[in-house]
Amino acid sequence: MSAARTVWLTGLPSAGKTTIAQALVARLVESGRRAELLDGDEVRKAICGGLGFSRADRDENVRRIGYVADLLSRNGVWAVCAVVSPYRQARDELRRLHHGRFAEVWVSTPHEVCATRDVKGLYARQRSGDMSGLTGADDPYEPPLRPELVLPTHELPLAECVDRLWNELVAAHSELATTP
Amino acid sequence: MSAARTVWLTGLPSAGKTTIAQALVARLVESGRRAELLDGDEVRKAICGGLGFSRADRDENVRRIGYVADLLSRNGVWAVCAVVSPYRQARDELRRLHHGRFAEVWVSTPHEVCATRDVKGLYARQRSGDMSGLTGADDPYEPPLRPELVLPTHELPLAECVDRLWNELVAAHSELATTP
Repeated sequence: MSAARTVWLTGLPSAGKTTIAQALVARLVESGRRAELLDGDEVRKAICGGLGFSRADRDENVRRIGYVADLLSRNGVWAVCAVVSPYRQARDELRRLHHGRFAEVWVSTPHEVCATRDVKGLYARQRSGDMSGLTGADDPYEPPLRPELVLPTHELPLAECVDRLWNELVAAHSELATTP
Repeated sequence: MSAARTVWLTGLPSAGKTTIAQALVARLVESGRRAELLDGDEVRKAICGGLGFSRADRDENVRRIGYVADLLSRNGVWAVCAVVSPYRQARDELRRLHHGRFAEVWVSTPHEVCATRDVKGLYARQRSGDMSGLTGADDPYEPPLRPELVLPTHELPLAECVDRLWNELVAAHSELATTP
């Protein structure tokens, strides 16, 4: 029961990362596991005050959240992270930091669908010229090359996404971890 | 076994906070508990890049380390923090954040003794005019008013300090936690 991982959900704004992460954390806690949701927007306020949205600041943001996730998961607490994290190199560095405890999940909802959902109104603001540097609109997003899992939320219902996460990353991992 | 606390060691530079924290973490781990050392100097590099030593930046540093400590201790991982944390109000805020899981330990080694030990050469640099803003020399330190424990390292050997921490903060707390 004590082996945990960092589950890192990456994808465009409004791709569905936070919703999936919340559902996974709830299921982990229900099953008696320790788990924390590290949501990009929330953690930014807690430990990334002063950082902006340049590439350097985005990478530093990812690095800090990854540092906290590593502290948790190496102590048996599942760290479920929902962070845009647009740059491949920063995510790959987190994978190395975690020594095998890292699962990268690409929430692959395409730009057109995200821009229609537009949960926080960011795409509308970008289109109207009110903001710039929006990942997937006028700022780059580098998809994972070898993610542990791809979740196309535009093709699968939420429950199916969470089931896949559970079966492929939690259940399988727990069996491995308890094999002598 | 799962109830953990944040043990917050505050005091002047070279007071002995890190040495005591390392010994406590080793003992916690030996006893089968989960524990992490959050050392001020180390954590500063990890999540506080860009912060300096103004009051506002020191307080933000304390707040961030406290945020991480809270994440750990509420998940059963002992967070042992060695941080100068000179301002009372910032420490009191952490106590509130922790909802009873916070133990403030004043490592009360006086300035004269710390300046003689001068593990990192900071007191010498401050005397020579090479740096300013050194806590306890030319920057304020506000001692805790009601700490859970006071450790005068100039009067007690290290082993005795760690024994007191263990008996008063770990053993007593574990008994409380396992009482039905």
